[in-house]
Amino acid sequence: MGESVTRIMVGVNESSMKGYPHPSISSKGAFEWTINKIVRNNVSSFILLFLHVQVPDEDGYEDVDSVYASNEDFKNMKEKERVRGTHLLEYFVTRCNEIGVACQAWIKEGDPKEVILNEVKRLRPDLLVVGSRGLGPFQKVFVGTVSEFCWKHAECPVMTIKRKPDETPRDPVDD
Amino acid sequence: MGESVTRIMVGVNESSMKGYPHPSISSKGAFEWTINKIVRNNVSSFILLFLHVQVPDEDGYEDVDSVYASNEDFKNMKEKERVRGTHLLEYFVTRCNEIGVACQAWIKEGDPKEVILNEVKRLRPDLLVVGSRGLGPFQKVFVGTVSEFCWKHAECPVMTIKRKPDETPRDPVDD
Repeated sequence: MGESVTRIMVGVNESSMKGYPHPSISSKGAFEWTINKIVRNNVSSFILLFLHVQVPDEDGYEDVDSVYASNEDFKNMKEKERVRGTHLLEYFVTRCNEIGVACQAWIKEGDPKEVILNEVKRLRPDLLVVGSRGLGPFQKVFVGTVSEFCWKHAECPVMTIKRKPDETPRDPVDD
Repeated sequence: MGESVTRIMVGVNESSMKGYPHPSISSKGAFEWTINKIVRNNVSSFILLFLHVQVPDEDGYEDVDSVYASNEDFKNMKEKERVRGTHLLEYFVTRCNEIGVACQAWIKEGDPKEVILNEVKRLRPDLLVVGSRGLGPFQKVFVGTVSEFCWKHAECPVMTIKRKPDETPRDPVDD
C-alpha cells in the first residue's frame, strides 16, 4: 500500500459572479474538503489534477455588444476566456503551493460531462472529485447533471461534495 | 487542517455465496480501495466505521425447512443472522487491526437505504463509502439503488467504488 501517489482529479468551475474569476462555491468546497479530510498532512502521497472545462459559445457573449460578432470579436472573447480560465486555475495551484501538495492544472473546451469522462479515460486518476450545488428540491430537477453523469459513467471512483446549505448564495448567479 | 481524525463510514454486506459469511466483492473492493488510496500510511488520521445492514425477513429463510416456521425457528434464525453479521464485520475489523487503523463496527436491521441515511445523520461521518456492483447495461436498471439513493440523499460526501469488470463473479449469486 502507498507505493505510488494517489492521483485525485478535481473538476473546477467558475462562479457566475461578474469580475475577476472566482472559483464557484462548490468547487472551492470540494477542494478544501479534499485537502482537510483526505490529504490532511500526508501531502507527499497525493497529486491533485485540476480540470477546468470551458463551454464554447455559452460563455463570453455578455461581454460583447452584439451576438453578431466579427471574427476578431470572437478571437478576443476566446483569448479573454482563456485568461479567465488560467486565473481560475491559478487560485487552486496557489493554494496547493501554500499547502505543499503537488498539482497539475489544465483547461479543456467542450461539454463538461463528456470532457471530464474523456479526461478520466485518458489520465486514469484514482479518484474523481466533483462539487455539486445541492440546491433545494425544486431546483434539483435542473441541476446536478454533470456530477450525476460523472458518478454514473466515470471509469474511476467518484466523490461528490455537496455544497453546505448555509453556503447557498442569495443570488443563484453568484454560485 | 488535520486537527481531528477523518471518520469514514463504510457500508458492507455479505456475498450471496453459501457457507461462512464472506464480504461481498464490492464491499471488499471499497474497503481495500479506501485503505490503499485514501488512508495509505497515514493510519492515525482516520477511523473507519463499518455498518452492516441486515434486511429482516429476506435473509435466513433458506436455512429452515418451511416458511411456516415456529417462533423458536425464527428466534434461531435471528440468532444465526446475528452470528453471520458478526463474522462479516470481524473480517473488516481484523484487516483494520493488521493495518493499524482504528475502527468501529456494528449491525443494524432494516432497509439498507434508510438505515445508512439514518446512521449518517446520527454519527455525522466525514465521508460515506459504498461499493457498487457495476453490472452491465442491462442489469444496471435493477441494481445500484442503494448506492444511488445514498449518493443523492446522504448528508455527507459520498464515494462510490464500482467493482472492476474483471471481478464480476461468473454466477451473480456469488457477488
